[in-house]
Amino acid sequence: MPGTPTADADVVVVGAGVAGLTAARRLAAAGSDVLVVEARDRVGGRTLSVPVPGADPDDPTAVLDLGAGWVGPTQDRVLALAAELGLATFGTYDEGANLSEHRGRMLRYSGTIPRLGPLMLADIGQAQARLDRMARQVPVEAPWTAQHAAAWERQTLESWARRNLRTRGGRDVLQLAAEAIWAAQMSELSLLHALFYIRAAGGFEALTGVRGGAQQDRIAGGTQAIALAAAAALPRPPLLSFPVAEVAWTPDGVTVGAADGRAVTARRAVFALAPHLLAPVRFSPGLPALRHQLHQRMPPGTVVKCHVVYRTPFWRDAGLTGQVTSPVGPVKVTFDASPPGGSPGVLLGFLEGRQARRLGPLSPERRRQEVLDCLARYLGPAARDATGYVERSWAADPYAGGCYAGYFGPGGWTEYGPALRPPIGPLHFAGTETATRWMGYLDGGVRSGEAAAVAVRASLGEAQPAV
Amino acid sequence: MPGTPTADADVVVVGAGVAGLTAARRLAAAGSDVLVVEARDRVGGRTLSVPVPGADPDDPTAVLDLGAGWVGPTQDRVLALAAELGLATFGTYDEGANLSEHRGRMLRYSGTIPRLGPLMLADIGQAQARLDRMARQVPVEAPWTAQHAAAWERQTLESWARRNLRTRGGRDVLQLAAEAIWAAQMSELSLLHALFYIRAAGGFEALTGVRGGAQQDRIAGGTQAIALAAAAALPRPPLLSFPVAEVAWTPDGVTVGAADGRAVTARRAVFALAPHLLAPVRFSPGLPALRHQLHQRMPPGTVVKCHVVYRTPFWRDAGLTGQVTSPVGPVKVTFDASPPGGSPGVLLGFLEGRQARRLGPLSPERRRQEVLDCLARYLGPAARDATGYVERSWAADPYAGGCYAGYFGPGGWTEYGPALRPPIGPLHFAGTETATRWMGYLDGGVRSGEAAAVAVRASLGEAQPAV
Repeated sequence: MPGTPTADADVVVVGAGVAGLTAARRLAAAGSDVLVVEARDRVGGRTLSVPVPGADPDDPTAVLDLGAGWVGPTQDRVLALAAELGLATFGTYDEGANLSEHRGRMLRYSGTIPRLGPLMLADIGQAQARLDRMARQVPVEAPWTAQHAAAWERQTLESWARRNLRTRGGRDVLQLAAEAIWAAQMSELSLLHALFYIRAAGGFEALTGVRGGAQQDRIAGGTQAIALAAAAALPRPPLLSFPVAEVAWTPDGVTVGAADGRAVTARRAVFALAPHLLAPVRFSPGLPALRHQLHQRMPPGTVVKCHVVYRTPFWRDAGLTGQVTSPVGPVKVTFDASPPGGSPGVLLGFLEGRQARRLGPLSPERRRQEVLDCLARYLGPAARDATGYVERSWAADPYAGGCYAGYFGPGGWTEYGPALRPPIGPLHFAGTETATRWMGYLDGGVRSGEAAAVAVRASLGEAQPAV
Repeated sequence: MPGTPTADADVVVVGAGVAGLTAARRLAAAGSDVLVVEARDRVGGRTLSVPVPGADPDDPTAVLDLGAGWVGPTQDRVLALAAELGLATFGTYDEGANLSEHRGRMLRYSGTIPRLGPLMLADIGQAQARLDRMARQVPVEAPWTAQHAAAWERQTLESWARRNLRTRGGRDVLQLAAEAIWAAQMSELSLLHALFYIRAAGGFEALTGVRGGAQQDRIAGGTQAIALAAAAALPRPPLLSFPVAEVAWTPDGVTVGAADGRAVTARRAVFALAPHLLAPVRFSPGLPALRHQLHQRMPPGTVVKCHVVYRTPFWRDAGLTGQVTSPVGPVKVTFDASPPGGSPGVLLGFLEGRQARRLGPLSPERRRQEVLDCLARYLGPAARDATGYVERSWAADPYAGGCYAGYFGPGGWTEYGPALRPPIGPLHFAGTETATRWMGYLDGGVRSGEAAAVAVRASLGEAQPAV
């Protein structure tokens, strides 16, 4: 049993990421007495913004986003929250040509699809159209009720790609997209999960695109500014370094306890974290078996996010956006992640899925070298002249366990999906994994927090938060 | 950090199931000072033997095995251990005809395959032969190195079945086998995992069969007697109610700590439990990301094991074995689980995979009623005259989280398999999930414990245990 309560509240929110802080903000605005507890010694969850090494320390926008880095159109709720908090956005640098590695050569192109030959282009085009068409048949509230749910759930995205893409190059592009979107191999993903995710974002291009897509804009000062500002505006400051170990609950109330004996009692709890992070928490009474097993079945992807700092964004002078894709890797996707002023230059490279697993065990020096070698292959020897290198392995972070988000393998949605969102007694669940729009994104996190605030107020018979 | 050591040893073994107790027994026999810690207040892990309600309390063989229940030929190591401990085996009752429900009728048949019509029989036969042939190509030490590993890993057992079984009835039989073997849907299993598992058991029939298969024999007094006797024979008794929360380690030593502050220091640790049960344990320094993420990716199946007690095993009088299979369920597989003397009668019915998930949330009374209704459909109204009913939901047990064993979905073996067995510094891993023969069975647990004892002694430069 948790120890003697050190605090009480109407609602305790577990997790100070954007989901939890949004829930707390909306609840507080509606009049609830709310307290957030957070395992880490900081707020922000899977957002983390740090100064660019060597940049002007007085420039608040010279930051690297080591976690979530972008916002985009139709992500209305995170954009609204950022605006409420007085945060500005700016466009991801996207001027010039992109590069794509193809059979050992770097191809220049504009837009999202490289000129890879008509056969491959047609192949990718038809696959994407087919995925979008199927995705539109997935009810985001209950993917397991889709007419073809059983058929989509027994196959992986990869077995679908094997049957529905005729070219090796086309399948490579889809695998690359899978790594960029889920930080996983196509073989690990249920087709139904992929379709749900596409639907929740509004389409395949919305997931992969820069202009008009999920990579379009950035937050001035970094995405963690959302959490920092939201936390600072709460009536009660979050309790940090409070990893929840035990939860005792009745139909009417809940006590959440940390391993060190601190405890918070409340009428309701909102668990605003990835489902797998609840596996270590001991509930008394125990959760229903279906919910308990859900925590074993929604693993997050694997990603090391690597920022390479240069004196200037030298690729811009060559008429390049800094966006490179390659089916070879190990860095398969890059972006220009320089501060808004363009100084210093920052190139962001992702190690995702299998690449993150392969390079993760290397020493930091070896990994940095592999990343620089790879970038030099893409952009020439200037890519070796780095003035700084900052990486973040989210799988190695015990309070993340991976990124970007928990996903379902085959069978996950149909067998365990019904347990993902409904509250259990006084226990409510939020976090981007529970979102029905933009799951896996900041926007999904915000939406899930808002939904939890509404549900909690309703369960208490209290007036709804004004959103 | 774990608290002040309350005990020390050469080797600390975490988990007092058959794997951990075997490791401890072999280590102690070789001269190591070994101490076992166990989260539960009992030894035995996924074995648990309780008296048959209403049976002669002086009959030590009148027990129900609520967990693992059988041993069989080629399971040499568990049979050797049982013999060492003075435990006898007896045959599973297997006299007479089996029943199979087919299109609303009960068919009587002998052997493992019901007479379902030549088309279905041929279909099942060719599928089984094909699975066996593929399984022989899986190297049990490293399934991810199989020539066709990538192709077998991107598909589920169900998508394979859809393409390779022509009849609905044939697929139903394979799904029934999947539930009986893994307590999961075919859609949740990687084909490569299924093939590995078949190979590790020596063939498909070895998994499903009674005579000549994994269900052939039982332990007199119950399978938990193995753990009880092994624990009693250890020089130092296991520390019970010691759920490991923290592990601090260096290349030379390890301290495992419980949440209540107790701690054991040792030169080596053997973690003899299902990988997903390590997710809650906090390691300092943290485990490599690949190992950490493995703990998120090997969920156990879902099973409620139901024992129905009768005055006599009435089905025997009708010339029946008590073995029933049905594609409808909810109890899809039954066995005669009466004590060796046949009194009282005990019918064992499994709720597995989706059936366990569907019936798990019901009240115990409702579930009992559904089970009895189902058995009456199979065996007539006499099946309603139960004198006792004892069930066990392993998914609801926080120190099991499911049964029978952790399995891999698609991508699991190729992406995470290499992290499953190798030690990390002083940390060794055992448990039936790590076995290369009879993974998921008692025999795999014993083998994994023996292998860990050998590896630990070798790492300490000490003489090997005599096995």
